[in-house]
Amino acid sequence: MRELTVNLEERSYPIYIGEGLLTRAGDLLLKHGLSTKSPLLIVTDDRVGPLYLDSLTSTLEASGFNPVSFVVPAGEQSKSLDVFQSIITKALEVGLDRKSAVIALGGGVVGDLAGYVAAAYMRGVRFVQIPTTILAHDSSVGGKVAVNHPKAKNIIGAFHQPELVLYDLDTLKSLPPREVRSGLAEVIKHGLIWDEEFVKWCDDNAERLLALDPEALGYALYKGCSVKAAVVSEDETEQGLRAILNLGHTIGHALEAVAGYNELQHGEAISIGMIGSAMLGVQLGAPIEVYERTRRALGLVGLPTTLPEHLNTDRIMEALMHDKKFGEGKLVFVVPTAIGKVEIRNDIRSEWIFAIVERLKREESWT
Amino acid sequence: MRELTVNLEERSYPIYIGEGLLTRAGDLLLKHGLSTKSPLLIVTDDRVGPLYLDSLTSTLEASGFNPVSFVVPAGEQSKSLDVFQSIITKALEVGLDRKSAVIALGGGVVGDLAGYVAAAYMRGVRFVQIPTTILAHDSSVGGKVAVNHPKAKNIIGAFHQPELVLYDLDTLKSLPPREVRSGLAEVIKHGLIWDEEFVKWCDDNAERLLALDPEALGYALYKGCSVKAAVVSEDETEQGLRAILNLGHTIGHALEAVAGYNELQHGEAISIGMIGSAMLGVQLGAPIEVYERTRRALGLVGLPTTLPEHLNTDRIMEALMHDKKFGEGKLVFVVPTAIGKVEIRNDIRSEWIFAIVERLKREESWT
Ligand SMILES: NC(=O)c1ccc[n+]([C@@H]2O[C@H](COP(=O)([O-])OP(=O)(O)OC[C@H]3O[C@@H](n4cnc5c(N)ncnc54)[C@H](O)[C@@H]3O)[C@@H](O)[C@H]2O)c1
Ligand SMILES: NC(=O)c1ccc[n+]([C@@H]2O[C@H](COP(=O)([O-])OP(=O)(O)OC[C@H]3O[C@@H](n4cnc5c(N)ncnc54)[C@H](O)[C@@H]3O)[C@@H](O)[C@H]2O)c1
Ligand SMILES: [Zn+2]
Ligand SMILES: [Zn+2]
Repeated sequence: MRELTVNLEERSYPIYIGEGLLTRAGDLLLKHGLSTKSPLLIVTDDRVGPLYLDSLTSTLEASGFNPVSFVVPAGEQSKSLDVFQSIITKALEVGLDRKSAVIALGGGVVGDLAGYVAAAYMRGVRFVQIPTTILAHDSSVGGKVAVNHPKAKNIIGAFHQPELVLYDLDTLKSLPPREVRSGLAEVIKHGLIWDEEFVKWCDDNAERLLALDPEALGYALYKGCSVKAAVVSEDETEQGLRAILNLGHTIGHALEAVAGYNELQHGEAISIGMIGSAMLGVQLGAPIEVYERTRRALGLVGLPTTLPEHLNTDRIMEALMHDKKFGEGKLVFVVPTAIGKVEIRNDIRSEWIFAIVERLKREESWT
Repeated sequence: MRELTVNLEERSYPIYIGEGLLTRAGDLLLKHGLSTKSPLLIVTDDRVGPLYLDSLTSTLEASGFNPVSFVVPAGEQSKSLDVFQSIITKALEVGLDRKSAVIALGGGVVGDLAGYVAAAYMRGVRFVQIPTTILAHDSSVGGKVAVNHPKAKNIIGAFHQPELVLYDLDTLKSLPPREVRSGLAEVIKHGLIWDEEFVKWCDDNAERLLALDPEALGYALYKGCSVKAAVVSEDETEQGLRAILNLGHTIGHALEAVAGYNELQHGEAISIGMIGSAMLGVQLGAPIEVYERTRRALGLVGLPTTLPEHLNTDRIMEALMHDKKFGEGKLVFVVPTAIGKVEIRNDIRSEWIFAIVERLKREESWT
């Protein structure tokens, strides 16, 4: 088992990564002082629940906890105020109190949703993250929780740190391969913004990662979480530095808005977005290898590196500009200056992005 | 104009109390660094809006701000997730961004609701309180914001401190007399828990307060806010001390639940509740004058000091026990030990409360 700490003074918490952790959940929650007198509310979805809920419930009961559960439909549409309200109703029905905790068992959707319940219920109760996707190594660390509004993603939310994050590598075995690849995009992102060595390691271990080799996967998630933890420790509420975590996301979000989710998953969209950002970096003076190595790292785990041609560039630009409206009127870009180093720029001209989007479609390889 | 500060380190903020402040709102917001580039969202209700919204909007515009407004129906039922969501929709439509602020213009309902929007939108934007009821001297200070669930009041919320509180005494002139009295209950509460001198002052100035004499009212609100600010500065998120602000509220909430709002307003219910708590205090050893002076102070401003007989004691006890369910299984009572001093007790037996509720009905005066 690997362990690391997110340092946030009195809100610091550990991340445990390893095999078989689900069956140790009871012990770990006891160790962290969660109350056995007050009910625990487990939130999960209808794909993860059938696989792991019974096991989690039994281990918690064996340790003397009193867990109840609420299962939401799998998928982004559960991150809504309606589902949020039904979980609050459940919490009231089972008498969740100030000493209770909410436990998220699932991917980023469940984590964000359950986390927002924990942030809001009685103005905040304790929260435990049990991530079951690779992407959720990102979403379960850092305390950003939210639900969506029909017109904007993650617009209703809070910063609410968990008490602990419990990452059982065994649960990742049931992940569809496309979810594996999509999650690896964020792992590689953490290398690209912070740690050149780790990017090299990902290249060398791409095969093992795709095969979910527990040793490789454990290390990769440990490194990914470490970068996220380091950034969040310095800038919990995104006053500055934390924005570097958005590498590839400005273009990525626009692509997600224009393509359907089935065509481009989040990790796939930001893979293309990170390649676009690398192009931008080169254009602004970074060495060409920044682009080449970004492209290589993502390609090696089977992520898309070019943009489907039928996605309309004007619509992508519109989606970008829509985002801009909420960022104080400026296009904000995270731009790599080297592998493992980025800067935040707000002087990016939309013509440059237009050209890059076109280029992302046209060329198999840019160089 | 009186000014005081709520000390919460980097979240400290001023409270301004005085006449004609609404027309100075633009200046004060500029002084506190609110952005004229990003839209401001004013939330008000359909009683307060017609009286003061135009004036607020003009002064803000004159200072270069770009205010937009959203009017909700007056009354507690607006503190709902539905209304919350429609305000978020409005915020998105007008392009509220991270530098924007939400302004609450109204009583505690508008303050709690708008404050929760400010807490949740983009995980938190700036917030300004412009309270227009006497009760709101309590609700506008301290950062507790929330909406209700059909099954529980204030169950969905956050701690989100305002940037400033702007209390224009002129706006209080349009308050119905019953709202005036109800608000004075919380003013007197602040004396009873913290400041014997001030209780005496309230006795001596009851007439002037009821007549909304600006000098007396300004002083009373200043003192009330000072007590609230002192308590909140020591215990922002209610880990301990802050609970003393609930004097009279355990019984009061139960009375509210059993009587209709029309029969007992919040201030009226806690007036009776505070008298019950004083009885409890005497029973536990406080001098009888604690009861007598509590009763006298509340009676002098026309608040009820006995309980309508037709309210069923068993139902009141049930409502109390229901509250208990959410307080880790114990009845928690704030009990006066002297005028201006209270302690928090969790060893109160329900039979004692039963007897006190009965007594609150039977006797014109206890002694
Ligand atoms: N809070 C943050 O900082 C942050 C960061 C990044 C992303 N996010 C959010 O995360 C969400 C995406 O997360 P996600 O990709 O994990 O999505 P997800 O939770 O929807 O999971 C993807 C799919 O995999 C299924 N699944 C999950 N675990 C499984 C398992 N072990 N075996 C089989 N199937 C499993 C789910 O049921 C779902 O169908 C988005 O809503 C995004 O906004 C949040
Ligand atoms: N956040 C906190 O710490 C806290 C503390 C105490 C109470 N509260 C909340 O405050 C709410 C009660 O506040 P309230 O009593 O101010 O209720 P309110 O906001 O409903 O106002 C009472 C009535 O007076 C009207 N009104 C307001 N200002 C007026 C004015 N200047 N002239 C004429 N009419 C006016 C309103 O339209 C409403 O009809 C409750 O929801 C309670 O939960 C919150
Ligand atoms: Zn992402
Ligand atoms: Zn009150």
